[in-house]
Amino acid sequence: MKIAIDAMGGDHAPKEIVLGAMKASRAFSDLQIILVGRENEIKKYLTDEERISIVHTEEVILGTDEPVRAVRRKKNSSMVVAAKLVKDGEADGCISAGNTGALMAAGLFVVGRIPGIDRPALAPTLPTLDGKGFVLLDVGANAEAKPDNLLENAIMGSVYAEKVRGIDNPRVGLLNIGTEEQKGNELTKQAYELLKASKLNFIGNVEARDLLDGVADVVVTDGFTGNMVLKTLEGTALSIFKMLKKALTSSVKSKLAAAVLKPDLKQLKAQMDYSEHGGAGLFGLKAPVVKAHGSSDANAIYNAIRQTREMIHKQVPETIQKTLEMN
Amino acid sequence: MKIAIDAMGGDHAPKEIVLGAMKASRAFSDLQIILVGRENEIKKYLTDEERISIVHTEEVILGTDEPVRAVRRKKNSSMVVAAKLVKDGEADGCISAGNTGALMAAGLFVVGRIPGIDRPALAPTLPTLDGKGFVLLDVGANAEAKPDNLLENAIMGSVYAEKVRGIDNPRVGLLNIGTEEQKGNELTKQAYELLKASKLNFIGNVEARDLLDGVADVVVTDGFTGNMVLKTLEGTALSIFKMLKKALTSSVKSKLAAAVLKPDLKQLKAQMDYSEHGGAGLFGLKAPVVKAHGSSDANAIYNAIRQTREMIHKQVPETIQKTLEMN
Repeated sequence: MKIAIDAMGGDHAPKEIVLGAMKASRAFSDLQIILVGRENEIKKYLTDEERISIVHTEEVILGTDEPVRAVRRKKNSSMVVAAKLVKDGEADGCISAGNTGALMAAGLFVVGRIPGIDRPALAPTLPTLDGKGFVLLDVGANAEAKPDNLLENAIMGSVYAEKVRGIDNPRVGLLNIGTEEQKGNELTKQAYELLKASKLNFIGNVEARDLLDGVADVVVTDGFTGNMVLKTLEGTALSIFKMLKKALTSSVKSKLAAAVLKPDLKQLKAQMDYSEHGGAGLFGLKAPVVKAHGSSDANAIYNAIRQTREMIHKQVPETIQKTLEMN
Repeated sequence: MKIAIDAMGGDHAPKEIVLGAMKASRAFSDLQIILVGRENEIKKYLTDEERISIVHTEEVILGTDEPVRAVRRKKNSSMVVAAKLVKDGEADGCISAGNTGALMAAGLFVVGRIPGIDRPALAPTLPTLDGKGFVLLDVGANAEAKPDNLLENAIMGSVYAEKVRGIDNPRVGLLNIGTEEQKGNELTKQAYELLKASKLNFIGNVEARDLLDGVADVVVTDGFTGNMVLKTLEGTALSIFKMLKKALTSSVKSKLAAAVLKPDLKQLKAQMDYSEHGGAGLFGLKAPVVKAHGSSDANAIYNAIRQTREMIHKQVPETIQKTLEMN
């Protein structure tokens, strides 16, 4: 199994990308990793080339680049070349921690959609209090959605939860402003009917307030709303941790007590860190494409590789296509 | 100045409502409070009748009642009677901690809209790290919105921020999935143009991630998205505090350290408690109507009364109407 990785994408590239790749290569003996990017920079950190090869390319897509234009013009960028390796059958899936919009464009234009999927969706796995997590999609691949797209999201999320996350008969919830059937806007009302008529384990509307309580295994929404929810979640957690830090260093007494609590607080922060679940999958493409967080360290990259490997191994794109035909 | 209060709405009614009313009456000598509800239950807690009168009514709208139907059928409910007092000029504004949907319906059907306002909006003031807070609207009065509604929200929020919150030339942000001008769905793209052309202090798109950092004084969105963001914010904060509590009681050592930190942690929680800023205003009605949180205690009710008094005093509905004509 071969996975291509954009070695130049993300805040800590290429160092953390390379370290993460080496960790994954040591962990999975069935894995061949192709690092795409500037060879001399990659080699600075690549101390173990066991089942890791380099495809050299100079060009890099920046975080500030306009996504679609960047993918069209920077055809030799590390991200686009990684996607091309997938298209050409040289790799079974690819990963990037770079420009999210550009990766979505590269996925769509280079890797291509599964027949029957109208819109691919970006799908992170988010933390819950019980540690199990849930898949949220779409979080921004498409700002506009039709009811059909929400059904597609439900199918894709369900297949992923079952195959990769090992959840039997995953509970699918429709994100809405109330739990009652008739709640919401036109989009959610129509999507509700489609989901109810599907063969999925649809449990009805779920509210944003209950997401971290693990109210569903797969939570379906349009990209605009999903992006809002994801960013509110991240922003709130970050703000509370900032406030907490300030409170715990407000006096000598607080600092001493905080030192005792450090392991507990560290664990708390780790519990909210969703990179443990890998990156955000770009579902609906012919092969697994995974977006690792921009701030990914070696461990986050390792998790994204583990996740991509699992998606390839469990034939997630193929299963999505089959399930589409059944629903 | 007269304020009518639904004494039977909320989880701790009528006790906390009555206690809050007495506190407000002691604080503001220009205030006449009318408590609407079951006289014998109210009188149990009403130890000081200074400038507080009771309008007796037996009927109560429950949290589980279907809002519009409840307002139509329970014409003698404490909430509807409070709204009628406003309509009839017997009160200058009203407050309820009861069924949110029913209060919105009572506001719309009984109190009535300001001419020129298409859709009233529900607008809480949420906390920021610097303690200043921001007004978010709409958080659910309308699940669907047109670009014009977002401009109305901006005008209403702006007037409120300036008149009641004392913010000079309030910064108005459009909630969106990115800060760039061309970002978002059709609704936000069109609303962007309207806001840019208005006389408001429009600062462009703002992201959900930056809300608690105080990125704007007024944040404008449709009711569906606003409700999602509000509930995600509440849910995330609640979940983190739950996790924190668990972490801090995990061992004897942790418990001892946590005891030392108790005042700091309490202050942290208070910082996130937005009832300090009053209830959520229902903007766009002919008179101030305020929704206090369902879990309101006496202090939250006191704050909602203080806020309603300020809205009446500063003629918020009249100013909204004037500002509408100018934009």
